[in-house]
Amino acid sequence: MYDLIIIGGGPAGIAAGIYGARKKLKTLLLSKDFFGQVGKSFLVENYPGFRKISGQDLMRKFRDHLKRFEIEIKEKGVREVQKSKDGFIVDIENKESFTAKAVIIASGRDPRPLEIPGEKTFIGKGISYCPTCDLPFFEKKDIAIIGGGNSGFETAIEAVKYCPKIYILEAGEKLLADEILQERVRKAKKIEIILNAKVKKILGQNWLEGLIYQDLKEKKDKELKIKGVFIQIGYVPTTSFVKDLVDFNERDEIIIEPKTCQTKTPGLFAAGDVTNVKYKQIVIAAGEGTKAALSAYEYVQKLAD
Amino acid sequence: MYDLIIIGGGPAGIAAGIYGARKKLKTLLLSKDFFGQVGKSFLVENYPGFRKISGQDLMRKFRDHLKRFEIEIKEKGVREVQKSKDGFIVDIENKESFTAKAVIIASGRDPRPLEIPGEKTFIGKGISYCPTCDLPFFEKKDIAIIGGGNSGFETAIEAVKYCPKIYILEAGEKLLADEILQERVRKAKKIEIILNAKVKKILGQNWLEGLIYQDLKEKKDKELKIKGVFIQIGYVPTTSFVKDLVDFNERDEIIIEPKTCQTKTPGLFAAGDVTNVKYKQIVIAAGEGTKAALSAYEYVQKLAD
Repeated sequence: MYDLIIIGGGPAGIAAGIYGARKKLKTLLLSKDFFGQVGKSFLVENYPGFRKISGQDLMRKFRDHLKRFEIEIKEKGVREVQKSKDGFIVDIENKESFTAKAVIIASGRDPRPLEIPGEKTFIGKGISYCPTCDLPFFEKKDIAIIGGGNSGFETAIEAVKYCPKIYILEAGEKLLADEILQERVRKAKKIEIILNAKVKKILGQNWLEGLIYQDLKEKKDKELKIKGVFIQIGYVPTTSFVKDLVDFNERDEIIIEPKTCQTKTPGLFAAGDVTNVKYKQIVIAAGEGTKAALSAYEYVQKLAD
Repeated sequence: MYDLIIIGGGPAGIAAGIYGARKKLKTLLLSKDFFGQVGKSFLVENYPGFRKISGQDLMRKFRDHLKRFEIEIKEKGVREVQKSKDGFIVDIENKESFTAKAVIIASGRDPRPLEIPGEKTFIGKGISYCPTCDLPFFEKKDIAIIGGGNSGFETAIEAVKYCPKIYILEAGEKLLADEILQERVRKAKKIEIILNAKVKKILGQNWLEGLIYQDLKEKKDKELKIKGVFIQIGYVPTTSFVKDLVDFNERDEIIIEPKTCQTKTPGLFAAGDVTNVKYKQIVIAAGEGTKAALSAYEYVQKLAD
């Protein structure tokens, strides 16, 4: 039986691992993907201590740091977390199971997909969820951005540097982006906003060539010829493996007690982007993972008393 | 008028500065001492991304990171923070004053004194609160370290290089240091741990020559002959410049709303070791400073609406 199982290998999970191991908790860290969302960042300039570093390099440093401590690491996804009499049972992909006195969920979040035909086909061939990673590849190409919220607008403003024509498609009647961003977009002549546009299909052969959307007002299908589509309709916290043991907010984020990262189940903690922490930033996630590990340590100590 | 004044140049203040500047807030950072408590650490092994780094080097990296953004920095202490009609007034040492729409207090904390006879007398003559600064002066001398927490244990481990005999005196029945540090100390034969030891008096003539402690179990005073005493019994939050604008807890820490770092006064935020954040760690402080800056940004945006 482990003292602690950490689910996730991003900034929150790795910080939790460093602290758990330093506290000499017998710790297992499970992560399908050590690079996660940070690994997709072209350039990180806001993690204190590193003036400029690629997301991949930063995550490599995090992982190397973790590996110098005594900690078991398995690059596996998790199927289910259940409560047992004296702790938790964590089932992983290959039908193995592990038990632990405490668990930290630090599984982050994934970009929300549109779930329409052609989307999966053209991932890496015109479809992107990560403007920071991919915008420079669309130099001199027309693109569409799906989503009229802050991230869609930020993507459009950034794209002005690269793309001759930029469409923002929003399925609703209203834009959700901050007014300050809307103002900037209005000043950029290259950007065209299309409201009531429900994207239905991605078109193309070897590379993406366009999309079809329904104009919800006119109730008519329309086509856009573009070479790139950035999908910016939010994120989905990665929580499929945990159900009744935690409470979720309206964004499907795990609700935590913010000082300790405790969920509603004693011994079960959550940290970083998977939670309702207000801001999603690397250094915040690392701080939250640290809190969760120190809380888990206190919890395990109390069990022993 | 500034958008934001940040008080403090440790991990919380610097992270706040990085984020404030990136959000294009007109920002002033005031710090008497850029190295603060972290700068006094021999070795930091738990800030994710750096496997091993001296406190001074880490703070140098933080400060260099900050300085690449557009931000004003003044190496000055703060005398008072007051509310004005449209924001805050911050008075500094040399009678200059600055105004800002929002303020972040990230002034950290100072070592707690024992407050016993002889302590003040022998500061610089055997009493030290800063092992990193002063341990090398105690080469070939026996010393006592007061406090059985992490910093006491780290001091003892470092002292092995210099001192023939090292005592750790802890007033409680139990050690609070991380297990990993306790293991290292157990292996070092030069180190002797004394529990239930309440230090009562520092002895000496021109230089410190010993101390008297009460053995709380035996209820008896005992004497140790040593040439140096390192006091490592915790910290006092640095808050003399702010009074009624914030609430304090029983440890004199500023009480914040943990999701936003807001104090009881709108526009006044606090982050890191000066607050009631449960754990005091570099990466947590940096995360909290980031939260405070993003909250301050939202606050300033709303004022403009």
